Amino acid sequence: MAAPGRFIVFEGGDGAGKSTQSARLADWLSQAGYPVKTTFEPGDTPVGARVREIVLHTDWDLDPRAEALLYAVDKAQHVAEVVRPALAAGEIVICDRYVDSTIAYQGAGRALGLDEITRLAWWSVAGLRPDLTVLMDVPVDQGLARTGEPDRMESQGTDFHQRVRDHFLGLAAADPARYLVVNGGDPKDQVTETIRARVETLVRVTPGNI
Amino acid sequence: MAAPGRFIVFEGGDGAGKSTQSARLADWLSQAGYPVKTTFEPGDTPVGARVREIVLHTDWDLDPRAEALLYAVDKAQHVAEVVRPALAAGEIVICDRYVDSTIAYQGAGRALGLDEITRLAWWSVAGLRPDLTVLMDVPVDQGLARTGEPDRMESQGTDFHQRVRDHFLGLAAADPARYLVVNGGDPKDQVTETIRARVETLVRVTPGNI
Repeated sequence: MAAPGRFIVFEGGDGAGKSTQSARLADWLSQAGYPVKTTFEPGDTPVGARVREIVLHTDWDLDPRAEALLYAVDKAQHVAEVVRPALAAGEIVICDRYVDSTIAYQGAGRALGLDEITRLAWWSVAGLRPDLTVLMDVPVDQGLARTGEPDRMESQGTDFHQRVRDHFLGLAAADPARYLVVNGGDPKDQVTETIRARVETLVRVTPGNI
Repeated sequence: MAAPGRFIVFEGGDGAGKSTQSARLADWLSQAGYPVKTTFEPGDTPVGARVREIVLHTDWDLDPRAEALLYAVDKAQHVAEVVRPALAAGEIVICDRYVDSTIAYQGAGRALGLDEITRLAWWSVAGLRPDLTVLMDVPVDQGLARTGEPDRMESQGTDFHQRVRDHFLGLAAADPARYLVVNGGDPKDQVTETIRARVETLVRVTPGNI
């Protein structure tokens, strides 16, 4: 029987360094001989790509519940098709954005209640929790300054992004054992080392380790 | 300010006569001078049509939660885009299938718990309840004998359709004031008269009537 895998999620606003740090972690674990699966939400399945087309389509006025449900479709299919099979095969799954992003962004949008969004997101993934969430945190003005062309989310204004950041920090504070909050403004190599040190304890020390 | 409309839903298995009777009711109300909007679930919005393509696509193995969520997307968008605006404009909305079909068919499929399906379906429509649900009931063998080519749902076997029927009847029994259960095996004109008699009380007697 395959060893159970590990599920590591990177969260945070745009421009916080998620892409750089998650890629570095994946390379490091691969070079150490661990089987690694990198993935992302939303959109990393054929169903998710179709769903994303509907969300981004501009010909209709998408109802807020319909939009939240479309993101939930993406999560359900992604976890069922990509994440759970990889974990069952003993891989370390490194996922760019997961449930916390759903809660933080949709919660900041305020079209629906936070409790409803939270319940829907966790239901969609059948309660699959990450073993570790690395929250890349930077002050909003620094994060926005680092991104290039704004996409729809990025163009929503500083207040919106401050609420997003507050949601992320609140989720991390509520369950510190499962989170590593790093200052995305620290030097990159220092951030990389901090993440490696925490991940080492996860892949080597946890019972039933790989 | 526009008079509040009325929301009438037709439910029941295939072959029970929903299409015939809902069309007759719509004609009758229109001829009596009422503004009528006929619609259906799933699929009666551009978003719903896209969602339906994803559900019916055979290139992927759709996760049961993702499928339930896709139907919920359809409902959310349909209610927001079609049903609520028509009701707000004072129209009588006649809808072929609604929340009860979701509960009855997905519940009969048994991939997910009935409570979860029920909660999701009502959340997707923000709790909008029909003023009247006409349940067209026929024994399963009679209903199946009346349909032509089986679609995916129809080809699921007699046990499945018996569970669907039981769910419909259970929902009607739990809230008799909002349901009219008619025997779809009765002569068509008799069924039509029974439905008209009930709808007359709804459009004429209810406070705030049209």
